[in-house]
Amino acid sequence: MSENRHGMLIVLSGPSGSGKGTIIKSLLAERDDTVLSVSMTTRAPRPGELDGIHYHFVTREKFEQTIAEDGFLEYAEYNGNYYGTPEAPIRRWLNEGKNVILEIEVQGAEKVMDHRSDLVSIFITIPSVEELERRLRGRGTETDEVIRGRMETARYELTRAFRYQYVVLNDEVDLAIDRINTIIDAESMRYSRMENTILEVLKYVSTQ
Amino acid sequence: MSENRHGMLIVLSGPSGSGKGTIIKSLLAERDDTVLSVSMTTRAPRPGELDGIHYHFVTREKFEQTIAEDGFLEYAEYNGNYYGTPEAPIRRWLNEGKNVILEIEVQGAEKVMDHRSDLVSIFITIPSVEELERRLRGRGTETDEVIRGRMETARYELTRAFRYQYVVLNDEVDLAIDRINTIIDAESMRYSRMENTILEVLKYVSTQ
Repeated sequence: MSENRHGMLIVLSGPSGSGKGTIIKSLLAERDDTVLSVSMTTRAPRPGELDGIHYHFVTREKFEQTIAEDGFLEYAEYNGNYYGTPEAPIRRWLNEGKNVILEIEVQGAEKVMDHRSDLVSIFITIPSVEELERRLRGRGTETDEVIRGRMETARYELTRAFRYQYVVLNDEVDLAIDRINTIIDAESMRYSRMENTILEVLKYVSTQ
Repeated sequence: MSENRHGMLIVLSGPSGSGKGTIIKSLLAERDDTVLSVSMTTRAPRPGELDGIHYHFVTREKFEQTIAEDGFLEYAEYNGNYYGTPEAPIRRWLNEGKNVILEIEVQGAEKVMDHRSDLVSIFITIPSVEELERRLRGRGTETDEVIRGRMETARYELTRAFRYQYVVLNDEVDLAIDRINTIIDAESMRYSRMENTILEVLKYVSTQ
């Protein structure tokens, strides 16, 4: 209701193959009030990944310099590579009233949740593990060993889903997007985000 | 997703004149997964109010007997009358997987919130106090003094809105109903209500 409403920080995780990427892409196309935080990483780009769009691809040296400057909301080492969330752009977007999606691994997400209470956390899951394996193989870009590793990671991530406020089932992409829209819309009616409306009404009542 | 899902307890409050009654009536007509808890009260029925539908209208003696039997989820004295929420039917509905709406005064709502964490609480507000007064006068059933009293109560209730998880603006009834539906749908994606889905996927992964 308020025009200068603060944006919502949305932490979004899910196993590799859960369809996070597709969901987020459609969500961003639909909502002009929502942007995606671009993580910084030291891992090599996958085929088709672009610097500044999918990740900021940097050297370990550059990454460790940013750590030293306290420039990350969180960072973690994962499969031998650094992944981190630069804080400055997020703060700017939230102040502008934009919702900011953080698409981060469980490890990083938990660090953010430990330090911030003003966020909405969503875990995306798949209906079955067969479906997960099918999706991972369908990519056609990974070896059997990599897929086994991802399945093992997925198992770990599912055991950490309890740390998230919401679980969204991705049985169909359109339904999953609707569900996330529903969560964002409901969260915008949280008392903390509606307080100005209440205070506005109360002001009039008090001056009766 | 689970078929034997437990229902959701929904506490709904708002100033007299906020349109709670109309909203709830439409909501119940739309959702066959949701029922309304009928409160017990010692106050006299208003014109058109039916026993067992709007309230269970009882004597002070009967009410105090139910208190003695520990039969209320909460009860309170309000404007010189008792209002209480009988617990047994609520427990039964929740076990059957029905959502149960408690339409209760702020005083009673806070007692329920103090004792239960497994609920969804929604405060319905109006866009302005002028609108509230217009609605109260529009009823045509109350004296000026009663209306002044209700305005005073409304002011108090608005100062307690912070105890609720959600605030729903009733600027238009249809929009208010959509908003409540959105909240119920989002709340059904809470981790605690999706845990079975996660455990189901995890079971398969673990047996790979």
